[in-house]
Amino acid sequence: MRAEIIAIGSELLSPWRLDTNSLFITEHLNRVGIRVWRKTIVGDRLEDLKHVFSAALQQADIVFCIGGLGPTQDDLTREAVAEVLGRKLCLNDEALQQLEQRYARIGVTMTPNNRQQAMVPEGGIVVPNPNGTAPGLFLAHEDRLVFLLPGPPHELKAMIVNQVMGFISRYHPTSPLIYRQLKIASEGESRVDHLVAPVYKSYPEVETTILASAGIVDLFFYWLRPEETERSDAVLDELTTRVKDLLGPSVFAEREESLEAVTGSLLRQRGKTLATAESCTGGFLSKLITDVPGSSDYFRGGMITYSNESKSSWLGVDRAKIEEFGAVSPVVAQTMAERVRLLAEADFGLSVTGIAGPSGGTADKPVGLVYVGFADAKGSELKKLQLPGDREIVRLRTARMALDWVRRRLL
Amino acid sequence: MRAEIIAIGSELLSPWRLDTNSLFITEHLNRVGIRVWRKTIVGDRLEDLKHVFSAALQQADIVFCIGGLGPTQDDLTREAVAEVLGRKLCLNDEALQQLEQRYARIGVTMTPNNRQQAMVPEGGIVVPNPNGTAPGLFLAHEDRLVFLLPGPPHELKAMIVNQVMGFISRYHPTSPLIYRQLKIASEGESRVDHLVAPVYKSYPEVETTILASAGIVDLFFYWLRPEETERSDAVLDELTTRVKDLLGPSVFAEREESLEAVTGSLLRQRGKTLATAESCTGGFLSKLITDVPGSSDYFRGGMITYSNESKSSWLGVDRAKIEEFGAVSPVVAQTMAERVRLLAEADFGLSVTGIAGPSGGTADKPVGLVYVGFADAKGSELKKLQLPGDREIVRLRTARMALDWVRRRLL
Repeated sequence: MRAEIIAIGSELLSPWRLDTNSLFITEHLNRVGIRVWRKTIVGDRLEDLKHVFSAALQQADIVFCIGGLGPTQDDLTREAVAEVLGRKLCLNDEALQQLEQRYARIGVTMTPNNRQQAMVPEGGIVVPNPNGTAPGLFLAHEDRLVFLLPGPPHELKAMIVNQVMGFISRYHPTSPLIYRQLKIASEGESRVDHLVAPVYKSYPEVETTILASAGIVDLFFYWLRPEETERSDAVLDELTTRVKDLLGPSVFAEREESLEAVTGSLLRQRGKTLATAESCTGGFLSKLITDVPGSSDYFRGGMITYSNESKSSWLGVDRAKIEEFGAVSPVVAQTMAERVRLLAEADFGLSVTGIAGPSGGTADKPVGLVYVGFADAKGSELKKLQLPGDREIVRLRTARMALDWVRRRLL
Repeated sequence: MRAEIIAIGSELLSPWRLDTNSLFITEHLNRVGIRVWRKTIVGDRLEDLKHVFSAALQQADIVFCIGGLGPTQDDLTREAVAEVLGRKLCLNDEALQQLEQRYARIGVTMTPNNRQQAMVPEGGIVVPNPNGTAPGLFLAHEDRLVFLLPGPPHELKAMIVNQVMGFISRYHPTSPLIYRQLKIASEGESRVDHLVAPVYKSYPEVETTILASAGIVDLFFYWLRPEETERSDAVLDELTTRVKDLLGPSVFAEREESLEAVTGSLLRQRGKTLATAESCTGGFLSKLITDVPGSSDYFRGGMITYSNESKSSWLGVDRAKIEEFGAVSPVVAQTMAERVRLLAEADFGLSVTGIAGPSGGTADKPVGLVYVGFADAKGSELKKLQLPGDREIVRLRTARMALDWVRRRLL
């Protein structure tokens, strides 16, 4: 069973906008064993829409058209689909009623062009949109399923979860994709592959995928034999266990979960608190920690000592030492971690000082050189990193590796 | 002239990866007046690649195939393109030599499968890749131009800039897209449109596009009449001036430039320094400020007072006042801004305290309530915000609105 996703909107063909809705749809389709074979992005021209939709219908069992359902002149998805399917567009009473109720609820007078949103190709079923005005549409055409859904992510997501997956399961028996996932921190992609390839290569019934981004590596093991699902759990568990043994504490999650959430959970479980002192990351480390709702349970606070003055006056780093060894040095990193821990009355102090680039590097201290300090009641320790990538990547890798250090200390 | 971009790789059809290369290509094509009519994302199956490439060739004047040029079995772009064009794949001496030199330079022994990367469809021209092993390819086929380019962004980008745009201009006379851009902060999309629509609607020779994301609105005015370019500057300048008059200081840039870079430039120009005190944004505001290289010139540092204890012990906010009014209150925001300014010996203090959600809201203080404080030598001021969106969006909007306040104070 193959799905195709068509994202509609001229802004998605500009240099400034990406279609991200397809990731959410793909995730939900994959869960029931449906793969996406193609994604297409097209603008708001009727001829282009018709061309793309008609090509999709020839290749995919399920076609999603996302966007172009609004009340304005450049919203042409309904017209294009009706023309390609050879169906008339008719005013749908149910859709009109929903629209009228929606406009009444938000206290807006409905204008004539809003009625366009209630036009439905003959035989189409209205998919209610609780979070917006444009209703979605579902059409069964020969053995194809067609969904027209609005583009705003919070409208789309609710409709996928609450309505669309139900339609699909009613028309097509689906079975969940069987797979395992491992998330790995502070290891490079090629090192991970080098370590685990000898293991996964001995499982011909499993397809392995490795994805890496800024210090995090994802391993996926997909079961390839739908006719032998009864063996899948045993085989995948065995494979996963062997790979986990090789990777040890580098594995931080076995499902889609962020490093900051996993580290936060461990801090909460162990009843430990954390404080940060950042130089080159400039708040990125603390931002990552506080991305997690409820992080105030274990995060006591942070100091961004971006200048030498703040390093000495806020954290009490010896001015003479900064002058002798430089702001990017082991002694500064360790003192920052120790001092912020005491000032915040936290169990752990975590510090970062380095050269994020693009300028500021020297032969001795090149761009990408970073010191991370960790302090607890027993004292402090240091890690020296030399990281590749641009400013954003160096800062993100640094923040993740610092956080991962805390995680490993809590295992 | 229409271009199509095909991004190749099964990982781009997973829930975890987006094609972002197409944004860079689109930007460079747009600059010379070429629009992208469709973007397609397809996996590593030969049949799918052939199908998608052959469909592209029927619709576009210029086709880009990105990815699938490596040495492994799932790199099938060359094969698919050769089959569709009806050309043989031959070992290309120039490509082989470049590969051998590249491997020698990085000190890696070339294995037989690496030679696959030197296979070129008959008549194809090798596009050197200074940043990686896989050479690119250029093919002129009937009146179509076809480019096969590697997927890693730093390889692709260099080739687009240094080689591809040159090929295109040699084969097709191009003329730059004529447009103006305005970037607007701290205003909603619908308010901006309401204000400026009466103006841009009176210019039939201009197409207006409005894009919004988390507190920033982009306005684009595209010139629609290539046959009357001599009028374009005068008309676009007049339109832009009228719109700027309506929007006033909300316009922060007239080209693609970030709010944090613009605010940073103003701070540097005026010789002013800034310090931050953050609660709910947890470092996001400081991270944004320090995203800009060289921000140490004007950013003195920040305190992330995520707990009540750190608010009082680090910033000296009165414990009694926190208890009486709450951590999210005008008096706390103002004291935070005043105190961090003094502690950092900065010209300006900027503070944030609020409820980012998803939990923690009450009837009195709902999720999205944020106080922003600003302090300078004359005293301090306060803004109360009530922001929509999820935790990430509330935090980003807050950080941007706080920063925009500093920018407006410097005008």
